[in-house]
Amino acid sequence: MVEAVTSRRNRSKIVGMEIQIAVAKVNKYAVSESGDTLEVIERPTGGLSVVLADGQTSGRGAKAVSMMVVRKVISLIAEGVRDGAAARAASDALFTDKAGKVTCTLNIASVDLHSKTIVLARNNPAPMFICRNEEIEEHNEESVSLGTSRNVRPVITELEIVPGLMIVIFSDGISHAGERRGQPMDIRQTLRSLMEEQDPTPQELADSLLAQAVRLDDNRPADDISVVTLRVSSRLGDDVRRMNVRLPIHA
Amino acid sequence: MVEAVTSRRNRSKIVGMEIQIAVAKVNKYAVSESGDTLEVIERPTGGLSVVLADGQTSGRGAKAVSMMVVRKVISLIAEGVRDGAAARAASDALFTDKAGKVTCTLNIASVDLHSKTIVLARNNPAPMFICRNEEIEEHNEESVSLGTSRNVRPVITELEIVPGLMIVIFSDGISHAGERRGQPMDIRQTLRSLMEEQDPTPQELADSLLAQAVRLDDNRPADDISVVTLRVSSRLGDDVRRMNVRLPIHA
Repeated sequence: MVEAVTSRRNRSKIVGMEIQIAVAKVNKYAVSESGDTLEVIERPTGGLSVVLADGQTSGRGAKAVSMMVVRKVISLIAEGVRDGAAARAASDALFTDKAGKVTCTLNIASVDLHSKTIVLARNNPAPMFICRNEEIEEHNEESVSLGTSRNVRPVITELEIVPGLMIVIFSDGISHAGERRGQPMDIRQTLRSLMEEQDPTPQELADSLLAQAVRLDDNRPADDISVVTLRVSSRLGDDVRRMNVRLPIHA
Repeated sequence: MVEAVTSRRNRSKIVGMEIQIAVAKVNKYAVSESGDTLEVIERPTGGLSVVLADGQTSGRGAKAVSMMVVRKVISLIAEGVRDGAAARAASDALFTDKAGKVTCTLNIASVDLHSKTIVLARNNPAPMFICRNEEIEEHNEESVSLGTSRNVRPVITELEIVPGLMIVIFSDGISHAGERRGQPMDIRQTLRSLMEEQDPTPQELADSLLAQAVRLDDNRPADDISVVTLRVSSRLGDDVRRMNVRLPIHA
């Protein structure tokens, strides 16, 4: 129904692209509050940023830390501060506050319509993956968490926005899944089989990675787990921006 | 695949509910920047808030105003300030800044897991709708935009979180759709026929309302249009939080 609506507008324009971002997130088993915080915000010059932070340990303390970091980062980005500088500022604030005793991982994935690039900032020992069709690239350059010292810088990866690109980012609930029972998750292999199986949507990919991690943790996640996927595709649809959120709650 | 994952956890818990939030958003015809700003953020005590602001006029100036208002509101909510107080603070800030010359509508829809209610704050002459099964309730209590005077208060509606509830909020691009050609949109009637047709998902409902408004504007939206729908349902799924964003971009 909606497809028909903007066809007249599309006809007069160059065919564009579409960014799709999906998130799947679950708490550590028997813990009601996730230490992971994730927000998606609009960038002041156009585009979006996804900000994911994972505070050390789990439960209430970790949540307070990861929320503080995400708040700091999104408010700086909203003011026009660049992602790398926002990450460094959040690290300094955390280090000043906690004297290096509490750390927090941070990933920022920005679709920057001003520079027409995707900018990935990573302060996280856990790797991230960049997939282009069959090719799966693991980014595991050394990267330290926020709050560890006075001079923490993120690893920055800047990518052209091209159809077929898929980016996979996660908290360490994925990279440590299965370790408790000595059967750690082979993330690259899991990704490869998922990508080969069919052309998964970003949500299917995020859901399947999370499901595999939860299975390896015997259905009792040993940590909070968050997965973010971002895909660039050739656009077939309309000019409508859409967002969909599902929040399970307990009665 | 994911459904199976947390079944063991669900079995030992009371069956819960699920909140689904959907957004559909389109710019005024031939204007690249929307005057509407919408963000979804996590509440510090659990749950989510959707914040929608529509700055007077359209284009860059309106965008700056609606972004300022949304930033103000989400940063206050993140600090634990209640929604009504956050709306009043944003109004005062706008009035101080623009001396009453620029106004901005605001809607906040919060799923507050602390009070276990849905709190709707409205500073918007445009109505909102609350649907419970067959019943469609229009909320058009008098409500003024932010920034109009020193003492602007939102209309607050607080609802119990019960399955079957559907909330529909929109910017005035919906309520003014079709006026240019003297065929204004009958929102209640449109909603009724959509709800009767089948059991629409929140995204289908938001998409269809937006599509109808765009049609009435001859496929050239006379204003930025944003629709937010929020549904409470009995939960059949898992404990996974999900988010999905689709952002069309021009090459």
